[in-house]
Amino acid sequence: MHELVERLYPLCRSITGDGVRATLDIVGEYLPLQRHEVPTGTPVLDWTVPQEWNIRDAYIADAAGHRVVDFAASSLHVLGYSVPVSATMPLSELRGHLHTLPEHPSWVPYRTSYYEPRWGFCLAQETLDALPEGEYEVRVDSTLADGHLSYAEHIVPGQVADEVIVSCHVCHPSLANDNLAGVAVATFLARALARERPWYTYRFLFAPGTIGAITWLARNAERIERVRHGLVLACAGDTGSLTYKRSRRGDAGIDRVMAHVLAASGRPHRITEFTPYGYDERQFCSPGFDLGVGSLSRTPYAGYPEYHTSADNPDFVSPEAMADTLAVCREAFSVLDRDRRYRNLSPYGEPQLGRRGLYDAIGGRSDAKQAQMAMLWVLSRSDGDHGLLDIAERSGLPFDTVAAAADALAAAGLIKA
Amino acid sequence: MHELVERLYPLCRSITGDGVRATLDIVGEYLPLQRHEVPTGTPVLDWTVPQEWNIRDAYIADAAGHRVVDFAASSLHVLGYSVPVSATMPLSELRGHLHTLPEHPSWVPYRTSYYEPRWGFCLAQETLDALPEGEYEVRVDSTLADGHLSYAEHIVPGQVADEVIVSCHVCHPSLANDNLAGVAVATFLARALARERPWYTYRFLFAPGTIGAITWLARNAERIERVRHGLVLACAGDTGSLTYKRSRRGDAGIDRVMAHVLAASGRPHRITEFTPYGYDERQFCSPGFDLGVGSLSRTPYAGYPEYHTSADNPDFVSPEAMADTLAVCREAFSVLDRDRRYRNLSPYGEPQLGRRGLYDAIGGRSDAKQAQMAMLWVLSRSDGDHGLLDIAERSGLPFDTVAAAADALAAAGLIKA
Amino acid sequence: MHELVERLYPLCRSITGDGVRATLDIVGEYLPLQRHEVPTGTPVLDWTVPQEWNIRDAYIADAAGHRVVDFAASSLHVLGYSVPVSATMPLSELRGHLHTLPEHPSWVPYRTSYYEPRWGFCLAQETLDALPEGEYEVRVDSTLADGHLSYAEHIVPGQVADEVIVSCHVCHPSLANDNLAGVAVATFLARALARERPWYTYRFLFAPGTIGAITWLARNAERIERVRHGLVLACAGDTGSLTYKRSRRGDAGIDRVMAHVLAASGRPHRITEFTPYGYDERQFCSPGFDLGVGSLSRTPYAGYPEYHTSADNPDFVSPEAMADTLAVCREAFSVLDRDRRYRNLSPYGEPQLGRRGLYDAIGGRSDAKQAQMAMLWVLSRSDGDHGLLDIAERSGLPFDTVAAAADALAAAGLIKA
Repeated sequence: MHELVERLYPLCRSITGDGVRATLDIVGEYLPLQRHEVPTGTPVLDWTVPQEWNIRDAYIADAAGHRVVDFAASSLHVLGYSVPVSATMPLSELRGHLHTLPEHPSWVPYRTSYYEPRWGFCLAQETLDALPEGEYEVRVDSTLADGHLSYAEHIVPGQVADEVIVSCHVCHPSLANDNLAGVAVATFLARALARERPWYTYRFLFAPGTIGAITWLARNAERIERVRHGLVLACAGDTGSLTYKRSRRGDAGIDRVMAHVLAASGRPHRITEFTPYGYDERQFCSPGFDLGVGSLSRTPYAGYPEYHTSADNPDFVSPEAMADTLAVCREAFSVLDRDRRYRNLSPYGEPQLGRRGLYDAIGGRSDAKQAQMAMLWVLSRSDGDHGLLDIAERSGLPFDTVAAAADALAAAGLIKA
Repeated sequence: MHELVERLYPLCRSITGDGVRATLDIVGEYLPLQRHEVPTGTPVLDWTVPQEWNIRDAYIADAAGHRVVDFAASSLHVLGYSVPVSATMPLSELRGHLHTLPEHPSWVPYRTSYYEPRWGFCLAQETLDALPEGEYEVRVDSTLADGHLSYAEHIVPGQVADEVIVSCHVCHPSLANDNLAGVAVATFLARALARERPWYTYRFLFAPGTIGAITWLARNAERIERVRHGLVLACAGDTGSLTYKRSRRGDAGIDRVMAHVLAASGRPHRITEFTPYGYDERQFCSPGFDLGVGSLSRTPYAGYPEYHTSADNPDFVSPEAMADTLAVCREAFSVLDRDRRYRNLSPYGEPQLGRRGLYDAIGGRSDAKQAQMAMLWVLSRSDGDHGLLDIAERSGLPFDTVAAAADALAAAGLIKA
Repeated sequence: MHELVERLYPLCRSITGDGVRATLDIVGEYLPLQRHEVPTGTPVLDWTVPQEWNIRDAYIADAAGHRVVDFAASSLHVLGYSVPVSATMPLSELRGHLHTLPEHPSWVPYRTSYYEPRWGFCLAQETLDALPEGEYEVRVDSTLADGHLSYAEHIVPGQVADEVIVSCHVCHPSLANDNLAGVAVATFLARALARERPWYTYRFLFAPGTIGAITWLARNAERIERVRHGLVLACAGDTGSLTYKRSRRGDAGIDRVMAHVLAASGRPHRITEFTPYGYDERQFCSPGFDLGVGSLSRTPYAGYPEYHTSADNPDFVSPEAMADTLAVCREAFSVLDRDRRYRNLSPYGEPQLGRRGLYDAIGGRSDAKQAQMAMLWVLSRSDGDHGLLDIAERSGLPFDTVAAAADALAAAGLIKA
């Protein structure tokens, strides 16, 4: 995953343009993708697909022609969606177009102006401080023109048409944790699920933030009612502990599964309530859709000083942290996939487990004892109102033990999904 | 307000009689009142309007004709609703008609016998201890005869016919905190609201306790269904911190507003659950009506030693405390008046705030940031089930910020009440 | 009660057979019983009534003919439901049929094999250690043959046909706390209730564990809908504090009553949630029936080292502990019997208690004050949704005070059940 982060890192992504396409090309080497190109001007819910932005070069050069700020060195140096400019001006005039982070003088900030036509540069405060007064040549060789918004999907077919959406934004330029780590975890999660023939159909969505999710929602009205659960992956690779942000519903299936898996795993973690600010859970959880979509991060958005700066580089994300995020996703989806409600078909008194070979003949082994207890719990709670996760939580038994008990009872004809 | 307390203090109020009328005359100088006179014998719910009690003079005089206890000195000296008496008797016989407070020997207690024909005097234990044995002349020059029960209303017209009732009892004689402070706060609250053209219609009720509220309820059957909220004001002027007692429902609008306003204000305060004992919330919250009426006090009834004694005099109530009670009422009614449920008219995805000029272009200012967050919260929660107060509590944002955001969104056509 | 425990202790009970009958004969001396005999092979819910097991003698004798393990000394020495055997074998072969408790070398364990045909002996580890190698004669003179399953009922008729079931298992051999103490408490509880003409009809069930409860449920399908509450008594005599295990519903009437009575009594106690393991609450609370049946124990099943060993003898149960269990049952059923929902017939405003003689004329006495408060609480909460126990808990008043207030109000025609 870290290799994928490193490959994607130099590209200049934005909400539209060739940087997004190049990103999807590389992800496509790991995973077959369905690519979508939506024309500028297409109405999508309350929005309109914007013009496409592409940039070839951008720099500030001093009087000697030396590039003191150069887009080629980092895609962060140019204000996202900068309009083209080609001019010479004194530093005093140029300053109005420069963005720095005085509190972190060696870092370059990340800034955009998607819906307001502006141009600008981002640079280290140190760099700015070193510039002598005088005339500078500024040039942004960009185009903002009708084109397309690009996104991609990968589907892991399941046993049922009900879907789980996994979404990650692909619109941020050279920022590793936000969100190349999320892209990498999503990619490898899709590959892992594809080997398992899951219960749900899993749809992976690689799209620019906000406008990408809105575009997908606008173009998939008929599919949305099949979406049972979802997860937005963002900031998935820093070394902080995991944070799960609940869906707007607060008690959706994914919310209960994530809380259970994180608690049962013993990992330090945080569960936070839904807020209407963050990543694309904002769109999936808007009140008209109100999907059961939560968000998994390590340190959440804006929670670390490197956030939206040049310090969020590939060194900032760790292979172990991404592997840990991936492991939790796999555990969670494994539980989600098996969390079904059964109905006890022999609900009057306990059924005689012994004559069905379900009662451990030997006794005393603690795992056999747990298996028996799990069967009694499944029989007791399978009244149509409680799923296996409820039963695991109520009984304090591991979900796997409860699920195995349910399998045994179902095979014996004692319960039915 | 303190001046009003001082003017009202000497009057001998009871549940009926001229003392109540004189009280309403004085309140009427501050506030136009609708006066009501309900004849003795009128059936009111399970009760009957009692005979009217009036008193001109009452005293105990020693053998020398010296008045050792004199109604003219304090209206508390006579047992409320004392039947007339004119007799001479030894101290030993008189004692059975005397009420003192041995634990506070210099204070005169307040006692009544509304529904049992008795006569009696209340005096300081010190006074009693100083009386030599011997014959005393006792005289209560009172009348208990058919007449009327008096109460008054003041209406502050609102934008809607739905009503908020503010009620305070006017039946206690020379007791300042219980309830002249409540009368004063109610009076000035009505004046303040009248300057504001509120949303709800506010009905102020100045009536004797229990029988007054019961009489109002009996005579306003058709109006009761318009009562949305209510507040009983009592013990509103001592220097203790505020206590809000919830309505019987426990989660009525006024309950949530008061809890929010008190918590948000940072004032020390207490919230207590409903009990069927206290002031006229007992009647408004009786199970047949079950109105959303709570009660605001400072130190609640019977919670201070001066309660129902001559020590509850104008010195016991403070202008600052009354001003503080008034301020909380105004804050609470301001929230109550604006706490409406909106419906997001663009609930699929987030609406594009930017093109409507609702997204702060400058960014970074914390109040602008809060305003944006408030808009996102209002959009997210305005699904018909959540009002602005819910949203303020859920988001942790100030109610005023949330209400301003709702105004802006409503003006932009994005939400509708 | 302790005398009854001592009389029952020597008998060799099992899930069927003459030991159960002899047990019911002795209980029948204290209480008239309806006896039931259900033939082997009768289908009962998912089970079938098993063959009847009877045993006359069982021993292991050494080469000298000396009985080193003798059923006559303790019914625990033989594996419950042992098939007959008569053989001579070396100790090495015999060991496979011997059960000991190495961690308590002087105690004899209790073991059964109800549904697997086996034979075996239980003995102290010390006894086993003292046996020299060599040939031993083993003999179990038992019969496993078609016969009957025996159980008994005692009914205390109530004022209504709605029933409360009190159940205790009678299938354990020489074990005092599990469950002769339960049998003794149930027996004396029935006698106490019979003297009181209770509200509910109380049905006492003395039956073997699991198969007995299942048999009763199978044969009383029409009666089950009349069962309002129930209590399983087990481990009722050790000196530990009381433990109440909630019904599967968790908030059934008996659950709320038991929690209230235990808390109000000030006794140290534990309330545990339902688990599908334990005694016959497993059957009564199976999801098809889901009856409001909890379980009262002192130290719960398997919670003490003497559990299911020869150390659970009559010395292990204390007369005081059984008396305490009995007292709590009586308190609980007394509350249960009186916990009714009333409706306030005068719900608009407070009714005038004074003219009905319900308002204490004297005042000031704290019990009179409590009685008045209880009347106000009953009037306030009697809206059809709250019973007297709810009112006691909400008001913090003793249940008896609330119930007395309800009686007074009902007598005055102010409330109606």
